[in-house]
Amino acid sequence: MGKIIAIMSGKGGVGKTTLTAYVGAALNRRGYRVLITDADFGMRDLDLVLGKENDIFFDAVDIWKDRCNKDNAMVPLREGFDFLPATQSRRWEDVGRKGYGKLIKKIAKDYDYVIIDAPAGIGRGNEAIFRVAEQLLLVAEPMWVSLRAVQRVMQLCHEERLFNYGLVLNNVGRSEAAVPVEEALQSLQVENLATIWPHSANILNWSQAGVLHEECDEAIETMMEPLLTYLESDTAWEETDILERWHSLFDVQNVDEEEAITETDTDTDTDESVEVAMTPENKTETIELVTETQANEVEQQNEEPPKKTSFGSLLKRRFASFWNRGGRFR
Amino acid sequence: MGKIIAIMSGKGGVGKTTLTAYVGAALNRRGYRVLITDADFGMRDLDLVLGKENDIFFDAVDIWKDRCNKDNAMVPLREGFDFLPATQSRRWEDVGRKGYGKLIKKIAKDYDYVIIDAPAGIGRGNEAIFRVAEQLLLVAEPMWVSLRAVQRVMQLCHEERLFNYGLVLNNVGRSEAAVPVEEALQSLQVENLATIWPHSANILNWSQAGVLHEECDEAIETMMEPLLTYLESDTAWEETDILERWHSLFDVQNVDEEEAITETDTDTDTDESVEVAMTPENKTETIELVTETQANEVEQQNEEPPKKTSFGSLLKRRFASFWNRGGRFR
Repeated sequence: MGKIIAIMSGKGGVGKTTLTAYVGAALNRRGYRVLITDADFGMRDLDLVLGKENDIFFDAVDIWKDRCNKDNAMVPLREGFDFLPATQSRRWEDVGRKGYGKLIKKIAKDYDYVIIDAPAGIGRGNEAIFRVAEQLLLVAEPMWVSLRAVQRVMQLCHEERLFNYGLVLNNVGRSEAAVPVEEALQSLQVENLATIWPHSANILNWSQAGVLHEECDEAIETMMEPLLTYLESDTAWEETDILERWHSLFDVQNVDEEEAITETDTDTDTDESVEVAMTPENKTETIELVTETQANEVEQQNEEPPKKTSFGSLLKRRFASFWNRGGRFR
Repeated sequence: MGKIIAIMSGKGGVGKTTLTAYVGAALNRRGYRVLITDADFGMRDLDLVLGKENDIFFDAVDIWKDRCNKDNAMVPLREGFDFLPATQSRRWEDVGRKGYGKLIKKIAKDYDYVIIDAPAGIGRGNEAIFRVAEQLLLVAEPMWVSLRAVQRVMQLCHEERLFNYGLVLNNVGRSEAAVPVEEALQSLQVENLATIWPHSANILNWSQAGVLHEECDEAIETMMEPLLTYLESDTAWEETDILERWHSLFDVQNVDEEEAITETDTDTDTDESVEVAMTPENKTETIELVTETQANEVEQQNEEPPKKTSFGSLLKRRFASFWNRGGRFR
């Protein structure tokens, strides 16, 4: 039976669906038979990202309710790479959960990997997925709201005794307001870092156009390697090795910008420019400035003497209570 | 009794929480008593955006289960502006829904406006919220996945016979891959456009730092006006008037960039630069180009003759089946 992997994040809009599509494609390029499936019943979007929204006649719930056979609902993407859509007409609240596990396990017999694009939140759907997934990828952006959502999911992993989970730090470099990579990782204290993914303007464009590209950005491909190793072997790379790869990729481009451009020009033979957002190096100072200004303004409104708040202490304050409770939410 | 408004989007990560905070603050500045409340049980984030994560000792569920009185759970933000947090330890699946309606109605007696930050998806929580909200703000980004999620919520509005809803087109100008404003609006065919909101790097920074600013970006304030009118009067501005305001704001800045900068310099007296992302005017051409390239590449892989796909026809194809079914999902 194929390995069942779920991609979860707690918070929506951090890139679960895109990751599902591109990780599936990458595994398929390595020669595996792969199924990607949307489990966001009632609010699906993987079909739009794949450009398959008009090719759906049956869905996962139709198989499970015996309204069609397995093959009728599968949307083929490539040789050995299929897509099973979620229903739009029903929600997780309207269907049983046990049936889902049976369905996925039955289907997994035909594949090497089944990747489930989980819904946001921690409701009924994710409960069902927890019970069938052998491995989880937790996706977080380097923003506080997303980091905390992943902490919440990690807590559930422990409650559900599913310890085989790894983190994907996603969309790094998209926003200047982001928490620096090292601090984001530190705040989560996660055992397995699956990979760090750069924000890619190309992928956003392709998702909008409904095209799953054969090969994506060079930077994405480079950072995909540790992730694939984790999925294939259940063993994550050393965090320092992933960080080193990350920094070698982006620090070089930042310092020798002209050289990097020349390199890009010579080794691409398509019209697509490899346009990947740079990671903001050492943004702490900028954010510190903003925080202090705001903090001072707020203090002034309260007519108390101004007090300095560094970003470091804000970080500690923000997550101290969480870790003081042994990583449990009240 | 105060008016109960819910902010919903279907898809997560499109700005519900930020909008809740800033709309609440704006109504409060107009002299109203306002409560903002997080209804994302188990996955709250409004407290982080407000910087109140360490000020929470009780929450909405504690009031409802009589574990504290109303005032213990309220976090005061300003005179006449309070915040009621969601629980983190329970999910909507673990609590009854009727109690929530009673709670919110009881609390609404003390306020002019109660604004509910709804969870993503269309599960139990949103079911409860549909039953208590008098007006909905539907938040969509100009991206296909978000636009379709809002269509799904609109369908639910009709099923639940809640017709008093308006659209906020949010984060406009954040991504070059975005659908142009006019096309996004056309694809939704929504009766009430509440407003168009620009993406603001400032607000993202402030959210990260956990500071709710007294007054936000000038552009945000300008585009807040039609939204506040809609909330106060239940009557939306004419769509053309909102579009005109939007274009006058951003087209002028695009054309006379130098002038705009001079203006900004003279009428701000703080250290904050008013840094608002520009709306990409007429991006159709760029996107068309990408789409055609992708489409051609895909065709070539399939060894079929290349075929031109314009973005316009993609739009029509993409949503034709939806509207052909009378705006209903199968």
